[in-house]
Amino acid sequence: MNKNLSSVKALTFDVFGTVVDWRSSIIKELTALGESKQISADWESFADKWRGGYAPMDQVRKGKLPWKSIDELHRMVLDQLLDEFQIKDISESEIAHLNKAWHRLAPWPDSVEGLSRLKEKYVIATLSNGNISLLVNMAKHSGLPWDVVLSSELAKHYKTDKEVYLTAASLLDLKPEEIMMCAAHQDDLLAARALGLKTAYISRPLEFGPERKNDATDDMPFDIIASDIAELAQQLGI
Amino acid sequence: MNKNLSSVKALTFDVFGTVVDWRSSIIKELTALGESKQISADWESFADKWRGGYAPMDQVRKGKLPWKSIDELHRMVLDQLLDEFQIKDISESEIAHLNKAWHRLAPWPDSVEGLSRLKEKYVIATLSNGNISLLVNMAKHSGLPWDVVLSSELAKHYKTDKEVYLTAASLLDLKPEEIMMCAAHQDDLLAARALGLKTAYISRPLEFGPERKNDATDDMPFDIIASDIAELAQQLGI
Repeated sequence: MNKNLSSVKALTFDVFGTVVDWRSSIIKELTALGESKQISADWESFADKWRGGYAPMDQVRKGKLPWKSIDELHRMVLDQLLDEFQIKDISESEIAHLNKAWHRLAPWPDSVEGLSRLKEKYVIATLSNGNISLLVNMAKHSGLPWDVVLSSELAKHYKTDKEVYLTAASLLDLKPEEIMMCAAHQDDLLAARALGLKTAYISRPLEFGPERKNDATDDMPFDIIASDIAELAQQLGI
Repeated sequence: MNKNLSSVKALTFDVFGTVVDWRSSIIKELTALGESKQISADWESFADKWRGGYAPMDQVRKGKLPWKSIDELHRMVLDQLLDEFQIKDISESEIAHLNKAWHRLAPWPDSVEGLSRLKEKYVIATLSNGNISLLVNMAKHSGLPWDVVLSSELAKHYKTDKEVYLTAASLLDLKPEEIMMCAAHQDDLLAARALGLKTAYISRPLEFGPERKNDATDDMPFDIIASDIAELAQQLGI
């Protein structure tokens, strides 16, 4: 193991894309709903727009909107998409259930095993833009063995605002260099790195589907580049 | 099971006294320290005064002191007690380690099994005056299988201030009646009950040692009275 990493006591994980495969999970729920209601639509496009429609999150970041949880932001985007896709034959309780599809995302095949191994040596935590209840429900649904569930919700700021990482460090009572941020997205890691956290890039080439590349580049300045969470454990000597 | 409890989705637990046996654990650490340093003292009295010396917490509650974590309050009391017991041959790092004895408290014999059973059906959470890092370290140390670690620290108020229970409900995205507060102390449960939470009293007759009674009475107005956490699971049909 890189000697530089011997200070690390806790690993904080981005969740959507890094630990769970949001795209396949959401497409699966949309497809099942469509079949049950005999609605046909381009569910892949619907899923991508749902995930991509985070303009309101930027408004929260800039202070133009008061704090709203991911559940609330998902619902704002969902309502727009149901309109855009002209899906009308759907009840309020069905919409509310669909909105919680984000609580039922399936882990990548290596996630549960990799996290379980890492938990033997480190505190493993979420550090996600997802709200606490979403992350708790997801962990129950998928068997993710978190030691502690941390979220942007606790800072009332969204990543990549610095308050999110600093709140996590404060709650864990650790110095930045005692924490390694683990994510499949460079912007998240660059923000953590600027504050002194260690960083691990987890490559998830299929996060955005087979036709869109992830953001991996050849010159990433992170402490670890891993092909998945199990391989991260291996690189950390576990 | 009491039909009245069918709404319950999450169980929030007081920790010191309810889940872990703070008194035996602290006396054990103090005794070991005393032996290693050849200091003799009444360690039972030291432990009781340490736990009982929470005057600063009341000052936080009343807004007379700014927020301080339990780690900080424990340290304030510890410094006074080291002086009172005239313990001088102790280094700063030894004092810091001793202060974290509260991170290493041992569970009651039924706690891990009982919580593991309850976790199959409910979200199980801490709701403790202990700070997050203390609760996370304790869970790692003792194998407590929390789904989520909630603390007074997240509300910047101490129990029995209402903000603590309301913050937990907000973060869990549950109504008060969907949460059952579980504690070995009537004041904690009465505060939760006043806000609409369900309540379970866990009897811990030895919390304060063999010579001091716990606060159980014959007319407790709680939804469940259980002899321990395993028996709570049994009463909930698990």
